[in-house]
Amino acid sequence: MAAKSMTLLWGSGSCPCWRAMIALEEKNLQGYNHKLLSFDKMEHKSQQVLDINPRGQLPTFKHGDTVVNESYAICLYLESHFKSQGNQLIPDGPEEQALMYQRMFEGLTFYEKLGSVIYYDWYVPEGERHDSALKRNKDGLVVELGLWEGYLSKGSGSFLAGKSFSLADVVVFPTVAFLFRFGLSAGRYPKLEEYYALLKDRPSIKASWPPHWLEGPEEELLLKDI
Amino acid sequence: MAAKSMTLLWGSGSCPCWRAMIALEEKNLQGYNHKLLSFDKMEHKSQQVLDINPRGQLPTFKHGDTVVNESYAICLYLESHFKSQGNQLIPDGPEEQALMYQRMFEGLTFYEKLGSVIYYDWYVPEGERHDSALKRNKDGLVVELGLWEGYLSKGSGSFLAGKSFSLADVVVFPTVAFLFRFGLSAGRYPKLEEYYALLKDRPSIKASWPPHWLEGPEEELLLKDI
Repeated sequence: MAAKSMTLLWGSGSCPCWRAMIALEEKNLQGYNHKLLSFDKMEHKSQQVLDINPRGQLPTFKHGDTVVNESYAICLYLESHFKSQGNQLIPDGPEEQALMYQRMFEGLTFYEKLGSVIYYDWYVPEGERHDSALKRNKDGLVVELGLWEGYLSKGSGSFLAGKSFSLADVVVFPTVAFLFRFGLSAGRYPKLEEYYALLKDRPSIKASWPPHWLEGPEEELLLKDI
Repeated sequence: MAAKSMTLLWGSGSCPCWRAMIALEEKNLQGYNHKLLSFDKMEHKSQQVLDINPRGQLPTFKHGDTVVNESYAICLYLESHFKSQGNQLIPDGPEEQALMYQRMFEGLTFYEKLGSVIYYDWYVPEGERHDSALKRNKDGLVVELGLWEGYLSKGSGSFLAGKSFSLADVVVFPTVAFLFRFGLSAGRYPKLEEYYALLKDRPSIKASWPPHWLEGPEEELLLKDI
């Protein structure tokens, strides 16, 4: 079985890792080797990771001798390599496909805007922080949320690229889950909440849910007023 | 001809626009409608753009009624839709394909690290700038340049994903061209210089060269000491 020749090094509560894990589940690649590493203990900078991934980042992924570490690259590689296995994640129709790619890459901006708020103190050293910058990042996230709320209300299906679950959902769902984990108001963003509720119990997503989230909420609700 | 039903709104000297234009050339889609807009005059926020692209960004691209604006999405869409037209941009072999996707997405980090230095004053309001932050960004770019210099010396071909030109080159070449435009030392980065020299006269790249670059160097050589 192909899954036996795969190894994923990952961290709990990382959107990029989660994307890779959802894709592996969707392509019926359960049974791949995997190892949970700790960001807190800096294990993503360990030799084990650096041997495969010079960036010292998670996910780190190997299929046989083939290395693919970037989460979007893992998704596209798996779909291409296991096209007829599990769920088809890139729609055939050119219009749906165009929409899927469009949303998939807008998803990078969505994730970046989320990170610029919830990871602000993590990315910006203390002496360089400015309330004005954090405020601008929050305003940017609000505009971004408005776009996605609009996409979901005007869309022609429940998923991001129409009537079927696709790679757009694989890569964007973790961002949406993070938003609610960090306290986003379901009342203010009803379409995003609906989307979250629709997908959170999907088998691929449930099976890959960040384990430390199951232990309870610990995060500060940084987004409750957004 | 398909190109006649395509419209690209673009700006000169934008890496994302350039990516789309190289892909269009490689797929033999010359003759597409296009309009050069001015970032200085804020034309990327004009109604003409906003009607197609709510983000008010360039490139903005339409094929018939199908909208695809994100540069990576345009590249993947064109390759999928015109697979057998022009040059094949995604290799068939799984290993080469994996490497291509890997480099393609690392290319986003490369571009971001470049931008964090050359656009620092543009992105960060005056009262929020810190020498320590710009220094860190420069250090990050140096590390990043080391990675790519290494990829090019260890690679099994002249291109980023091996022996053939691929989407990885389409999306990363503009970043490399920007590096040298902003004064990167060819002596310190010989492999990148070699790669730049190999590709700069390729027809797809020459045909889409940023027009205002042809008028002469105006940029400050912000990268000359990197």
